[in-house]
Amino acid sequence: MEHRHATGAEVRLLARAGNLDRQTSGLAMGYVQANLVAVPKKYAFDLLLFCQRNPRPCPLLDVVEAGRFDPPFLAPGADIRTDVPRYRVFEKGTVVEEPADVVSWWKDDMVGFLLGCSFTFEKALMEVGVPVRHVETKRNVPMYKTNLLCRPAGIFRGPMVVSMRPMTPGQAIRAVEVCSRYPRAHGAPIHLGDPSALGIADLDRPDYGDPPTMLSGEIPVFWACGVTPQAVAVEAQPSLLITHKPGCMFVGDLRDADLEGAGN
Amino acid sequence: MEHRHATGAEVRLLARAGNLDRQTSGLAMGYVQANLVAVPKKYAFDLLLFCQRNPRPCPLLDVVEAGRFDPPFLAPGADIRTDVPRYRVFEKGTVVEEPADVVSWWKDDMVGFLLGCSFTFEKALMEVGVPVRHVETKRNVPMYKTNLLCRPAGIFRGPMVVSMRPMTPGQAIRAVEVCSRYPRAHGAPIHLGDPSALGIADLDRPDYGDPPTMLSGEIPVFWACGVTPQAVAVEAQPSLLITHKPGCMFVGDLRDADLEGAGN
Repeated sequence: MEHRHATGAEVRLLARAGNLDRQTSGLAMGYVQANLVAVPKKYAFDLLLFCQRNPRPCPLLDVVEAGRFDPPFLAPGADIRTDVPRYRVFEKGTVVEEPADVVSWWKDDMVGFLLGCSFTFEKALMEVGVPVRHVETKRNVPMYKTNLLCRPAGIFRGPMVVSMRPMTPGQAIRAVEVCSRYPRAHGAPIHLGDPSALGIADLDRPDYGDPPTMLSGEIPVFWACGVTPQAVAVEAQPSLLITHKPGCMFVGDLRDADLEGAGN
Repeated sequence: MEHRHATGAEVRLLARAGNLDRQTSGLAMGYVQANLVAVPKKYAFDLLLFCQRNPRPCPLLDVVEAGRFDPPFLAPGADIRTDVPRYRVFEKGTVVEEPADVVSWWKDDMVGFLLGCSFTFEKALMEVGVPVRHVETKRNVPMYKTNLLCRPAGIFRGPMVVSMRPMTPGQAIRAVEVCSRYPRAHGAPIHLGDPSALGIADLDRPDYGDPPTMLSGEIPVFWACGVTPQAVAVEAQPSLLITHKPGCMFVGDLRDADLEGAGN
C-alpha cells in the first residue's frame, strides 16, 4: 500500500498539500493516529472535562492550546488546521462542510484535542495474529451510536459511539488481553455478542463507516470509539466544532509503542 | 486504630463537625483517599490541562464543577469545603491560613479537583507483604521537591514533588509490580536509589511530612506525589488556590479496588 512506510510527518505534509484525500488506515504504519476535536475557548473546559470523564471513547493524547496549531507532545511543528486529509465542520450540531483544510474556519481562540485511535490497537492485534476484517477487506470500520450515555460535562452529553470488529470467541479473548495494554487507544472492548444490548438494531446499517462482513462462527466485538464527540456535538450544539472526517485521522510523530500503558 | 474501620462518609462527617484534626492515613481503610486542589473558574482549564499532562503526580479522579460542592463520582453528597480535616489556603502562592474548613474562603465559581493518593497503593503493598515504614512508625510520609519539571499548562508550571518509602531492592521490585496496577494512584515509582538524581540533597530534611527511618540494606524508592500542585501554586501565584494540608486527605465513597487499571 502506498505510504504504508511513510513517517507521520510525511503523511501530514501530503495532507497539507491537498494530496491525500482518503482515510488513513494503513498509512505510516506504527505512527500514532488520532481523532481531532476543536472548539472555541469558551467550550474548552467542558470538553476537556468530558474527555477526562469518558476516557474509553475519548482518551486524551494532547491538547493544542489557543494561539498555537501544533500538538506539543504528539507532533511539535504540525498544523492541525491543514494536516488532516479531510475535516468536518459543525455549526450548532449540524455538519455544514467537509473541507480539506479549516484555515478559513479557524478562530483565534480555538482549542484542539487529539484523542487516541483504534488504529493503534489494530496494529497490535495483527502483530499477534488476530485478523482485523475491515483492514483485510480495505473498508472503513463500522461505527454505531449506542444507548450507552456518556458521563456529561457542562454542555457536552450524549451517546457513546462504538466501533465493531467481527472475531471468533478465541480471538475476542486475545483481543481483550492485547487491547487492555492500550488504555490511551480505547483499551479493552466494552461489549461482545448481542448488539441489541447496546441498542444497535442492525449491524448492516452502521451510523458511520462501512457495513461489516461477518463470517460463520464470529461474534461482534465492540470498542468505545473516538467518533463519540461528533455524536455529542449533534446534541450539545456548540456554535462551532471541528473534527476530522471519520477514518481520516491526524498522524503524529509518536509511535504506537509509546502509547502502551496509562501514560506518564 | 480509631476509625480504621469507619466508612469514607463517617470520616467526612467527623471532619465536617470539626472532630478530626489529624492526618488520615490508616482511617477508613479500603476507601479511596484523595488530594484536593480548588481554584477560581478562570484558572480551571489550565489546572485541568496541567493534570492531564502530568498524570503521575496529578491522577485526576473527579472534578467538582462551579456551583456544586460534591465530587459527583467519588463522593456524591459530600462537601469539599468542610469534609477535609485541615486545609491550606494560598493567596498569590503564599500560605495564608490552614483552616479546618474553607466555607468563608469559597467563591461562587470555585472548581475543585480530586487527585489519587498514595494511601491506595500503600494498602495494596501491605496486603502483599511489602512493609510501609512511615505507616509502621505512625509518621507522615517524607515528601521532597525535585529538579524534575512538570509539563507546563497555562499559568501552572513548576517542580514535581515526590514521596519516598525505604525498601530492600526485592521489595522495590515487588512495589513496581503492585503499584503499576494503580495508575490513578500515582502508579509505579518514578525513581529508586540515589536521591541526588532528583536533586534531593538530604533525605533527612523533607520539604513536607516527617523525616524517614532508613534501615541497613534499604534504598529510597520515590513516587510522584499529589502535593505537586502545592509546589506549583507557589510558582504560578494564582490569586486563590485551596488544597488539603499534606496528609489530611479527602476520603471518598469509592473503594481502593475501584482504582485498579486506567479507568472507564
